[in-house]
Amino acid sequence: MNERIIQLINEKKFSILKEELNEAMAVDIAEAFEELDKKNSIILFRLLSKDLAVDVFSYLSGQQRKDIVDAIHETKLNEIIDELYFDDMIDFLEEMPANVVKKILVNATDEERKLINQFLNYPENSAGSLMTIEYVDLKKEMTVKEALEHIKKTGVDKETIYTCYVLNEKRKLEGIVSLRKLVLLEDNLLVEEIMNEDYISCTTLDDQEEVTLLFKKYDLLTVPVVDKEARLVGIITIDDIVDVIDQENTEDFQKMAAMEPNDEEYLYSNVFSLARRRIVWLALLMVTATLTEMIIGRFESTLAAITVLAASIPMLMDTAGNAGAQSSTLIIRGIALGEVELTDYIKVFWKEFRVSSIVGIALASINLIRMLLLGSEASVAFTVSITLLITIMMAKVVGGTLPIVAKKLRLDPAIMAGPLITTIVDVMALLVYFNIAGVLIL
Amino acid sequence: MNERIIQLINEKKFSILKEELNEAMAVDIAEAFEELDKKNSIILFRLLSKDLAVDVFSYLSGQQRKDIVDAIHETKLNEIIDELYFDDMIDFLEEMPANVVKKILVNATDEERKLINQFLNYPENSAGSLMTIEYVDLKKEMTVKEALEHIKKTGVDKETIYTCYVLNEKRKLEGIVSLRKLVLLEDNLLVEEIMNEDYISCTTLDDQEEVTLLFKKYDLLTVPVVDKEARLVGIITIDDIVDVIDQENTEDFQKMAAMEPNDEEYLYSNVFSLARRRIVWLALLMVTATLTEMIIGRFESTLAAITVLAASIPMLMDTAGNAGAQSSTLIIRGIALGEVELTDYIKVFWKEFRVSSIVGIALASINLIRMLLLGSEASVAFTVSITLLITIMMAKVVGGTLPIVAKKLRLDPAIMAGPLITTIVDVMALLVYFNIAGVLIL
Repeated sequence: MNERIIQLINEKKFSILKEELNEAMAVDIAEAFEELDKKNSIILFRLLSKDLAVDVFSYLSGQQRKDIVDAIHETKLNEIIDELYFDDMIDFLEEMPANVVKKILVNATDEERKLINQFLNYPENSAGSLMTIEYVDLKKEMTVKEALEHIKKTGVDKETIYTCYVLNEKRKLEGIVSLRKLVLLEDNLLVEEIMNEDYISCTTLDDQEEVTLLFKKYDLLTVPVVDKEARLVGIITIDDIVDVIDQENTEDFQKMAAMEPNDEEYLYSNVFSLARRRIVWLALLMVTATLTEMIIGRFESTLAAITVLAASIPMLMDTAGNAGAQSSTLIIRGIALGEVELTDYIKVFWKEFRVSSIVGIALASINLIRMLLLGSEASVAFTVSITLLITIMMAKVVGGTLPIVAKKLRLDPAIMAGPLITTIVDVMALLVYFNIAGVLIL
Repeated sequence: MNERIIQLINEKKFSILKEELNEAMAVDIAEAFEELDKKNSIILFRLLSKDLAVDVFSYLSGQQRKDIVDAIHETKLNEIIDELYFDDMIDFLEEMPANVVKKILVNATDEERKLINQFLNYPENSAGSLMTIEYVDLKKEMTVKEALEHIKKTGVDKETIYTCYVLNEKRKLEGIVSLRKLVLLEDNLLVEEIMNEDYISCTTLDDQEEVTLLFKKYDLLTVPVVDKEARLVGIITIDDIVDVIDQENTEDFQKMAAMEPNDEEYLYSNVFSLARRRIVWLALLMVTATLTEMIIGRFESTLAAITVLAASIPMLMDTAGNAGAQSSTLIIRGIALGEVELTDYIKVFWKEFRVSSIVGIALASINLIRMLLLGSEASVAFTVSITLLITIMMAKVVGGTLPIVAKKLRLDPAIMAGPLITTIVDVMALLVYFNIAGVLIL
C-alpha cells in the first residue's frame, strides 16, 4: 500500500490516488507519511476525504502533525479537531506549541475550554491522561428497549458503546451494563435490574501501570474513571491499554540496560538525545568501578607474584555479572507482572540460595575440568573454581533480592538490573578471589 | 477477599463462606487457591455454585486443576468441561495427563472429538492454539433486525458477540459486521450492505507474535482465523492477546538475560528447573571467556612489567559491556515492536557510529580527569581513556547491528543481548588495551 501511494504521488497521478485512498485503511495511509517529505505529506493529506483525514491524523506522529497544522487552513484544522475523539485531541494539544493551542481554544465554548484545560493538567502516565469522555450514559429507570434506543440515538460519536454507564442526576456512577446484556436480555427488563453495581473502577490520579493490571486481571474492555465522589469523569479503553503495556515494557527494557527511558522510536530519535540518555548511567557506573581499581591496587603484590591470576578476572566477573542479571531479571519481571510481592522477600532469598548452589556447583565443576585440561596449576584452578561458586551464589542472592529492596524504598525495581548488579558483584568477586588466592596459593 | 476466604475455611464456617462466595468475583476466588493446601482447595471448590466453579476453574493454574480433577466426581468434571469456552478447554486438556484426556474424550461426540484433536495439534505459539470457536455467524441475506434476533437466540454461549462473522454455505468468511453497526444502523438494511469485506485475518499457523502486531496496528477486539480456502475456523479475542504480549515480553526479558525462556511463575517454579534453565547459557558464556584468558596470557609480560594496567581491566570491560547492552537492547526492542526492519541495517550502523562517538568522547574525558585526579601516571590515564573511547564505539556498533544480523539469519534477535555482547566486546577491549599500552607505555 505504502509503495503504491508513494509511487502515485511521485508520478503526480493525484486523481487515481484520491480514488484509491478511499478504499485504504487509515493506519496504512498514515504509514506512507513516514516515507514522504513535508511537501508531499501535505499534498497527500489534502487529497483525503474529511472523515479519512480525521482518522489518518489521529495516527500521525507529533512532527508530522505539526507540519500539517502549519500548512492547512484554520477552518479545516478546526473541522478535524472537532471530529477527533477527546483523548486523541488532548494528545494532539499536548504536542502542539502554545500559539496553536491558543488558536484552538479560542474557538471552543467556555465549558469545552474548562474541560480541555482540566485534561491537559492530568500528570503524564496517570489514568486521567489516558481517558476519553465519549461514553454512553444510561439512567437506571430505563428499560432495555429504551436503553437500546438511547444508544442508537447517541452512540455514533462514542468511542465505545459496548460498555454503558448508569449515572444518577449528580453523574454518580451507579452501575455498568454491557451491550451484550442489553442485546441478549428481554426488552422490558429495567437497566437497574441487570446492571452490575460491583464494578471495577479507577481514579484520575492512579498510575497507568496499576490500571493495566486491572485490565489484565479482570479481562476488561473498558474501565470507568471516577472522582472522589464516585462521579464518572471518563473511561479508558483496551486499545490505549495495549499501547501502555508496550510503553511500560519498553521503559523497563531501557532502564534495565542502564538508559534513561524514552518512548520515541529509535530511527526517528535525534543522535544527541540518544547519547544524552546513555551517558549518565554509563558514567555513574564507570566511576563506581573505581572501587574495583582500588581493590586490585590493594592486592597488587599478590598479582605481581602470581600474574596468572589476572587471566581469570574477566571470566570471573562476566560469569558473576551474568548470574546476577539472570536472577534480577526474573524478579523485576515478576514484580512488574504482580507475581512477586514485597512480602515474598524471604521466599525469593531462600529460592535463590538453593538455585544458586546448584548453578554454582555445576559451573565450578565445569570450570575446574576446563582449567585442568588446559594445563593450569591445580592451586590456581581450585582458587578460580571456589571463587566462582561463592560469587555465583552471592550474585544470585543479591540480584534476586535487591529489586525487592528497591521496590520497598519506592524506587523502580528495574534499576536493579544487570549493569548495576554487575558492578556490585564485581567488587565482591574480586575480594573473594584475592582472599582465596592468598590462602590457597601464597 | 483472599484473607477472608482463608479465615472462614480455617474456622470451618462453611455456610457463611458459601454465601459470601456468591458475591465474589471468580478471579479473586481463584487467587485464594494459591494460599490453600490441597485439602482446603478441594473444600473451597466444592462450595462453589456450578457457574462460579466453571469460571474459577478457568483461572486456576495447571497444578491446582490437577488436584481438583483428582478429587471431584467424573460427572461434575464433565459438567465443568462442557461449560468452559473452547479455548479454555483446550488449554486445560493440554495440561492434563493422557488418562484424564482420554476419560473426557470418551464422553464427547465423534464430531467434538475430531475438533478437539485438531485443536490439540496446533503448534504452541500459533494462532490456532489461541483461537476459540464460540463466535456468532450471520448470513449476508439477513436484515439487521434478523441478525439481532439471531444474536439474541444464539449469543449467550458465545465468547464475544461484538464482532459477527458473515459466512456462506461453505463456511467461507465473506465479511465482518460489528455489533456497533447492527445496533446503530437501520433495522431494514441487509447485512451484505453494511459488512466489511476488507477484513484483517490470520491463518492457523501464523505465529502469535505476528497476530499481536495486527491487533496493535488496527486496534482490534477480535481477529478471525481462516484456512487456505478462506473458511472461518475460529476467532482470537483481545484478552488472550494481552496475555500473549506479556508472555512474549517475559520470554524476551529471559533470553536477554541469558536464560532459556519459560512462562511459569517464579514463585511456583521448581528449584531444579530454574537452575537448569540458567546453567546452559552461563556455562557457554563462561567457556567462551577462555578467549579473554588466552589474550591476557599472551600479554603476560606486558602485565608483569606494568601491573597497574590490571587495575583498570574490570572498569574497561564493564563499561564496554554496558555500552554494548544499551545499543543491543534498543534494537532488539525496536525489532520486536516492528519499528526496526532488516533493511535498516545501514541506518542503525551509522546512527550508532555517531551516538557512540559522542558517548565515547564524553566517557573518555570523564575518565581521564578522574584518573589524573586520583594520581595515575599520565601515560596510563591516556592508555585507559583511549581504550575506553575505541571500545565504547566498537561495543555500540556491534551491539546495535548484531541483533539485525541474528534476525537475518532467522535467529531470535533477543539472544544478541547484554551477556553475549559483553563476552564479544571483552575480547575486543582487551586486545585494544594491550596494544595501546604497548605503544604508549612500553
